[in-house]
Amino acid sequence: MSDNKMVQISNPNLDSQLDDCLCHLGIFKSMLDLPMTFGDVKFLCMGGSERRIRKYAEMFAEQMNLKMSENFCKTDRYVMYKTGQVLWVNHGIGIPSLSIILVEVIKLLHHAKAKEVVAIRIGTSGGLGLPPGTLILSNKAVNGELQDQYVQYIMGKKVLRSANFDAEVLEQLQQTAIQLNLPVQVGKTFCTDDFYEGQARMDGAFCDYTVEQKFAFLNHLYDLGVRNIEMESLCFAALLNRSNIRSAVVCVSLVNRLKGDQIKLSAKDINEFEMSTYKLVSEYIRKQLRIH
Amino acid sequence: MSDNKMVQISNPNLDSQLDDCLCHLGIFKSMLDLPMTFGDVKFLCMGGSERRIRKYAEMFAEQMNLKMSENFCKTDRYVMYKTGQVLWVNHGIGIPSLSIILVEVIKLLHHAKAKEVVAIRIGTSGGLGLPPGTLILSNKAVNGELQDQYVQYIMGKKVLRSANFDAEVLEQLQQTAIQLNLPVQVGKTFCTDDFYEGQARMDGAFCDYTVEQKFAFLNHLYDLGVRNIEMESLCFAALLNRSNIRSAVVCVSLVNRLKGDQIKLSAKDINEFEMSTYKLVSEYIRKQLRIH
Repeated sequence: MSDNKMVQISNPNLDSQLDDCLCHLGIFKSMLDLPMTFGDVKFLCMGGSERRIRKYAEMFAEQMNLKMSENFCKTDRYVMYKTGQVLWVNHGIGIPSLSIILVEVIKLLHHAKAKEVVAIRIGTSGGLGLPPGTLILSNKAVNGELQDQYVQYIMGKKVLRSANFDAEVLEQLQQTAIQLNLPVQVGKTFCTDDFYEGQARMDGAFCDYTVEQKFAFLNHLYDLGVRNIEMESLCFAALLNRSNIRSAVVCVSLVNRLKGDQIKLSAKDINEFEMSTYKLVSEYIRKQLRIH
Repeated sequence: MSDNKMVQISNPNLDSQLDDCLCHLGIFKSMLDLPMTFGDVKFLCMGGSERRIRKYAEMFAEQMNLKMSENFCKTDRYVMYKTGQVLWVNHGIGIPSLSIILVEVIKLLHHAKAKEVVAIRIGTSGGLGLPPGTLILSNKAVNGELQDQYVQYIMGKKVLRSANFDAEVLEQLQQTAIQLNLPVQVGKTFCTDDFYEGQARMDGAFCDYTVEQKFAFLNHLYDLGVRNIEMESLCFAALLNRSNIRSAVVCVSLVNRLKGDQIKLSAKDINEFEMSTYKLVSEYIRKQLRIH
């Protein structure tokens, strides 16, 4: 196996540190044998909600007859479970929350000498022109200015990062969805920093635009190829691109934003839709890892 | 009491909705008598961590001899407790996560006809030129481009919002800290979307700058009057300004960033520092509400 499959970081300063604190995980590099504990990881599955990630890890362990680890995260900010070669980590809501834990998980996997890792974000989203329940696989993500780049501000300067999803993983996920008879679409994702005004909703505390302006904007997004709206995909792809981890984002739509803003689904429907993302991702991983 | 003390929203569309779903709280306007349940709220206390907010609410209830409510939040995304006239809500990490719950709490307090509300964010932060344990009261917050404005992207366009803290609340908090003999400083807050590169840390997965560049930038921040770095204050002030709620941010410093990046405190020290923010805020509220 050549080194170019390894999880990469780019920070010469870490070599001179005596130890490394992954401080939102509450893990020190010196506390655990990281290569022994995490060196075999091949899939990193992330989602916003702590409860949902825990449930997915429990179901995966049970269905694949694997042991589920304790929660490795020692703070109350995030959770992290391991089931065989799959790591399950929640990321909270929005890019800042995601960026912190993703940087720390990338350092963890690098210290562990993990290689050939694929990362999949499993989420919920607002859909565009698609019925609730449709799975959307992101082939591109665009920011608040509709550019396909992740924006960082470093030392007062704007820095743009490319954010690419892996074409092969995307194709394999799409084929798996078709085999499972799950409704699936490939499209662009509008990645925002704000759920209400940032997504042109009419039901927030503040709304300075008209319903006509809203629909003009959402239709413009649709014409650009956007099929859903969420809040993490750009940073997810950009940080994983830099760390040599292939990435994909699978979201289910909970509302067709071309019809309304408020989610009007029963708890049963929401649960079923959230389960469909798990069904797709777990079946994809099962096939890749050749688990019977 | 004149109407100009009421919690305000600005969205004519809500009037035409049959109901209103505060969907990350899992509360419908029709489910509860909101004026009866929340109409008396005078203080909204927020912080990132769910566990810490719950602990603060429990301590406040016990010390002030008040009943603590159940967790009103029906999703696993946030928590919300009430103790007398004080509402305790966590906001997760970063502006996007904060913005969602703050919009929904503002709608809740508006529906409840609450008036004369003061909101205080209680957090941890990196300090600049101050020993760990110092309390920093924000008198201004600046964004990644060092401008004192909250940036939103609405329908593809950049929108700037002013973000002002309340001078009277700030002064009262400072006086209370002095009376309690707690180390306190008033200063600007650098509000970032990123914990590692965005805060010029040398210990992330990626670092393209030198230690000299880092210190030049942090010293520049210091010269601008910045005394701490966190990830929510700008949005907190800006949304509360729009809703006619006075706001303050109280953070304790866990590290002097002019000396290092990694937090090297014992769990006991961190707990004591987090408790000092609570001591200040609870004593301030006790005096304002004239609880004996």
